[in-house]
Amino acid sequence: MKKHALLLLSSSLAVATASAVEVSSPSGTVRADFNVENGVPVYSVSYKGEKVVLPSRMGLRLVGADDLTDGFELLGTDTSAFDETWQPVWGESSHIRNHYNELTARLSQPATGRRMDVKFRVYDDGVGFRYEFPQEGRLNYFVIEDERTEFAMPGDITAWWITGDYDTQEYEYNQSRLSEIRAINSNGVEGNLSQTQFSPTGVQTSLQLKTDEGIYLNIHEAALVDYSCLHLELDDKNFVFTSWLTPDAQGNKGHLQTPCTSPWRTLIMSDDARDILASNLVLNLNEPCRYDDTSWIKPVKYIGVWWEMIGHDKPWAYTYDLPSVKLDRVDYSNLKPNGVHPANNDNVKRYIDFAAAHGFDQVLVEGWNIGWEDWSGNKKDYVFDFQTPYPDFDIAMLNDYAHSKGVRLMMHHETSSSVRNYERHMEAAYRLMDKYGYNSVKSGYVGDILPRGEHHYGQWMCNHYLYALTEAAKHKIMVNAHEAVHPTGLCRTYPNLIGNESARGTEYESFVGNSTSHTCILPFTRLQGGPMDYTPGIFENDLSKFNPAKTSHVNTTICRQLALYVTMYSPLQMAADVPEVYERFMDAFQFIKDVAVDWDKSVYLEAEPAAYITAARKAKGSDEWYLGAISADARKSKLKLDFLDPTITYEATIYADAPDAHYLTNPQAYKISKKKVTSKSDLSLNIAPGGGCAVSFKPVVR
Amino acid sequence: MKKHALLLLSSSLAVATASAVEVSSPSGTVRADFNVENGVPVYSVSYKGEKVVLPSRMGLRLVGADDLTDGFELLGTDTSAFDETWQPVWGESSHIRNHYNELTARLSQPATGRRMDVKFRVYDDGVGFRYEFPQEGRLNYFVIEDERTEFAMPGDITAWWITGDYDTQEYEYNQSRLSEIRAINSNGVEGNLSQTQFSPTGVQTSLQLKTDEGIYLNIHEAALVDYSCLHLELDDKNFVFTSWLTPDAQGNKGHLQTPCTSPWRTLIMSDDARDILASNLVLNLNEPCRYDDTSWIKPVKYIGVWWEMIGHDKPWAYTYDLPSVKLDRVDYSNLKPNGVHPANNDNVKRYIDFAAAHGFDQVLVEGWNIGWEDWSGNKKDYVFDFQTPYPDFDIAMLNDYAHSKGVRLMMHHETSSSVRNYERHMEAAYRLMDKYGYNSVKSGYVGDILPRGEHHYGQWMCNHYLYALTEAAKHKIMVNAHEAVHPTGLCRTYPNLIGNESARGTEYESFVGNSTSHTCILPFTRLQGGPMDYTPGIFENDLSKFNPAKTSHVNTTICRQLALYVTMYSPLQMAADVPEVYERFMDAFQFIKDVAVDWDKSVYLEAEPAAYITAARKAKGSDEWYLGAISADARKSKLKLDFLDPTITYEATIYADAPDAHYLTNPQAYKISKKKVTSKSDLSLNIAPGGGCAVSFKPVVR
Repeated sequence: MKKHALLLLSSSLAVATASAVEVSSPSGTVRADFNVENGVPVYSVSYKGEKVVLPSRMGLRLVGADDLTDGFELLGTDTSAFDETWQPVWGESSHIRNHYNELTARLSQPATGRRMDVKFRVYDDGVGFRYEFPQEGRLNYFVIEDERTEFAMPGDITAWWITGDYDTQEYEYNQSRLSEIRAINSNGVEGNLSQTQFSPTGVQTSLQLKTDEGIYLNIHEAALVDYSCLHLELDDKNFVFTSWLTPDAQGNKGHLQTPCTSPWRTLIMSDDARDILASNLVLNLNEPCRYDDTSWIKPVKYIGVWWEMIGHDKPWAYTYDLPSVKLDRVDYSNLKPNGVHPANNDNVKRYIDFAAAHGFDQVLVEGWNIGWEDWSGNKKDYVFDFQTPYPDFDIAMLNDYAHSKGVRLMMHHETSSSVRNYERHMEAAYRLMDKYGYNSVKSGYVGDILPRGEHHYGQWMCNHYLYALTEAAKHKIMVNAHEAVHPTGLCRTYPNLIGNESARGTEYESFVGNSTSHTCILPFTRLQGGPMDYTPGIFENDLSKFNPAKTSHVNTTICRQLALYVTMYSPLQMAADVPEVYERFMDAFQFIKDVAVDWDKSVYLEAEPAAYITAARKAKGSDEWYLGAISADARKSKLKLDFLDPTITYEATIYADAPDAHYLTNPQAYKISKKKVTSKSDLSLNIAPGGGCAVSFKPVVR
Repeated sequence: MKKHALLLLSSSLAVATASAVEVSSPSGTVRADFNVENGVPVYSVSYKGEKVVLPSRMGLRLVGADDLTDGFELLGTDTSAFDETWQPVWGESSHIRNHYNELTARLSQPATGRRMDVKFRVYDDGVGFRYEFPQEGRLNYFVIEDERTEFAMPGDITAWWITGDYDTQEYEYNQSRLSEIRAINSNGVEGNLSQTQFSPTGVQTSLQLKTDEGIYLNIHEAALVDYSCLHLELDDKNFVFTSWLTPDAQGNKGHLQTPCTSPWRTLIMSDDARDILASNLVLNLNEPCRYDDTSWIKPVKYIGVWWEMIGHDKPWAYTYDLPSVKLDRVDYSNLKPNGVHPANNDNVKRYIDFAAAHGFDQVLVEGWNIGWEDWSGNKKDYVFDFQTPYPDFDIAMLNDYAHSKGVRLMMHHETSSSVRNYERHMEAAYRLMDKYGYNSVKSGYVGDILPRGEHHYGQWMCNHYLYALTEAAKHKIMVNAHEAVHPTGLCRTYPNLIGNESARGTEYESFVGNSTSHTCILPFTRLQGGPMDYTPGIFENDLSKFNPAKTSHVNTTICRQLALYVTMYSPLQMAADVPEVYERFMDAFQFIKDVAVDWDKSVYLEAEPAAYITAARKAKGSDEWYLGAISADARKSKLKLDFLDPTITYEATIYADAPDAHYLTNPQAYKISKKKVTSKSDLSLNIAPGGGCAVSFKPVVR
């Protein structure tokens, strides 16, 4: 590929000379260049004058039709500027500025009579671009063999990555040079009920990168709608990533009909890692909220009947007497209960009481519905009906009981990835929720997808996740979908998507443990697309207390668990441990009770991928601030509190790792102290290995 | 394979010696032998002492598990006799006798600890057998690689067959020796929007066969539920058919969970071809009706806005101005109507008037709903919403108008095989029908299936067809599903399945023409599983009168069209031609007005596969009889009318081909005569090439 020449003009908006055009960000920090070179669309991206994406080809290969990769001519360009400030229904900030310059390069492919456009939006913190397929010329229906968008990296830079997979993102992140990806990827990956790697150099987005010059670069996608999920495959000789979409059951990667667009391919960039965390680029590239009324969408702090099963190995199932279940044949009333499954009336009431006593909004109950004796691993079609409770879960009584205490139950729909079955029962399941007063559902997609041959991240399933969401909205139901496709900012458009999993969550602390760096990389990567239901708050690290056979360990200090409520932004936050554990640490638990789940303002004070993150956030409609700091390794730092309101004196309550705390050997050692602070104060952090620090700032004097 | 020895005992029930067992039919005419030979289950079938199925192996190959084909031991046998008479909701007879002897051979596979049974039901007109998989031992979930049921034929016998295909049955039948199948099959098959042949010797069931000794044998299946459709592949050296199931998107042929069974594999046999047509074996092998209330299920005689499009080439689409439709974006109110699509208010009212004037129950209207501009060939997901009428179809007004005249409209749901989309809209679509007073729907599955990679006849789709049917029953809606899997007698269990297409129907008279033998073979084959919406009644053979470019021709005489209302049994009968054609032939049309669609009794007077069929039926709750006779070639015969009530004198109205009638050159030449007849009378038939004869018998003197 030849490097193309550009005439550089002073305008920050796009200019065109022959077929070479450019568009710069409002401040000029970021610039995208576009050209058609020998018929091939080529782009590159610069940050502060440095090329962070070298000239890279664009296009798509089609099935049974000429490719959309070459033979193009530039018909013309359209440019515009845009600046708005919008208010999310919930978020890290009450107001988000969406400020970019836009360039649309209109292309034609004369040999085929087809049209394709490439649209760039250039922000001061990055670039989004997408393919647009107008209904002009001869392009109507087309099938994507593969998208061939290149991201040519400026050398053998550092990456934080998880292996490319069509069905799961539940991996630990690797940190390596690009040239090392192949060797590490070949070392094998952990088992998951559904996983499909596609290439020894395949990686997932959001992908965090860093040049040796200290420029942080993040590659992801925004507004993944009616398309298949973006992965990347690396040419590790030339350090060029190429887009790699998720195939359908027949190996094709997208079925499109004009007029349509691809999702945005996003590049967030800065020489300050904190800017990557603060970026709203992915949200901004999504469409505004589609719902007229959003009054029913509210952030949720919740507890749940969950860690008893995940962490303490109690069963979701009601009985041990059913080796195989056919839902339409089984009569549970005749079966012997195992006596230990936690989703029973008495235990759920205990959780409701605890939630009411400590100000939680909701109580999740998993294992409430029939079918769990035989639910996974068999690609079972009629696996759940999402409507029939076990005999010892009195759905009417428990909801009444909860409501009488100002608490709601949270619904749980594990689909076992039998998606036709879920869609068939969805309307009735949502109506059941309406009837009993549920307004949120945690859904799950464990195991291989039915229809068979489809993948979690293909176009078919992306369509399903959005269907489940928009159907839920008709019932004013909020959705927290686990094992779904990576989020891409759709929560702006559909803010009842209040959470996703789409990464390795706290549950892995029970399975095999998470690394101490894991939550130090997630905000850079997984959280770019939207909030994660990470389910923090585990205070008892030693799970062998509940199951002596257990060898896994929760690899954080208690203070790290507290700090996660701030560093892992989400409008949906769980206190995941069990009530009897919290009762042993009520002083530390106070932070979880206090911390907000919706914010007016967020500031990132310190950050380095996979190393440390310090964030502070101002609670929505309040003068309280909350700070969280986490570090993979032991770390000291001194923070200026200049983000605080200079007119207010605060009482800071500091939840700090004890000097001898250590995530492995002494995780429950913490020290809580209080002091008065102002915006002129400093705060010293002293974080243990795998530790953290959490601080609440409550106004005491104005 | 060794021939196994049997001790023949006098009992007509099963006896066992070592592992060889037999079971005979109540009269002893038919006998099934079963043995486990060197661990392999083997059966054979005899008719009047002659082996019509030679020793044939049974079993299934599994995916990722030991096969269920050998290593078996016979644990024991259970035998029983059964005799009942049941009343179908609708049918060829008001009472059906279900009389058989049953043998269950209980097998174990010691090396794997698994169990499998083979159950035989032996009737005087044939045998049904199936695999049963109890939930005992180690067999729980299993995936079928292929079923390996053999049907070893007693030589190079004659077969009437259509090519094996996973997606369509819309073929002309071939008549050949078994040894000739490969050569004929390789001659290529006609195009269809979705077709998938699997083998040069693959054929579909129901398969009609005839030995040189004159024994007629029919192979099909009964009660196809939660399994994939049966086809057969021929070993044309040894004349052994082996079952060949329809694969899913991943190539697997069935996903089962114990306890479960295969469908019945059916063998109907007689030395009189008429017995094959009269057999109720397939219905009898299905479960009794599942619905408590069937009062809402009624046979239907209907006309429709359909042949104008199929035969006269008018469009389903409302406008020519939409090359591509996205349903959620298009506003039809702004588009220019093409002015010729027939599903408009005025034209539909004209059909309603005609239906009311001539006593039809319903008027089908195709092309009433938005999306037809762009509906097929693109594997389009959101292709129809089944709810939004075109601007010129006033659904409320037209239904009110129809109801005011004692007529109903018939709904039409073309899915374009986008099955997820149909299921998503199904409940709303059925509710729309409830709202406007529709009680029947013609559904269609044109084109390749979505989910992609699935086939029309796979387990996934069989599950869907049944879902559409049982969901319809909740709304008291009757279903007539076109392009669905071949019927297997499920209409006994779910009698709101009042019709299917599942064969080459009258529409092909417009496309390329049907052979004159086609409707002489369908009752032997396609109709074994249930009624067909063949849509007879085309009186104008020359379609170039409506579209000068058209070269196809309707290859029957008018009298054949009349006779089909009797020879093609169905509770759903269409008078498919357009009102203005019928108005030219009102004397012949009188037969269609008169003929019943439900019957107390049916007799088959003459029959030979693909050559001729003469049937007479007594109208339900009436003393009227109707007779239909058809013949591929010119044919004369003399019938005894001894089926008539000997106490009644009838006026017979005879609709006969004129002496010079011919399906090609003079198809509209007929002669209508009346005479008094009794059960002692004879009736001479003189059928033209491609012709037929229809007779109504109305009591005049008792």
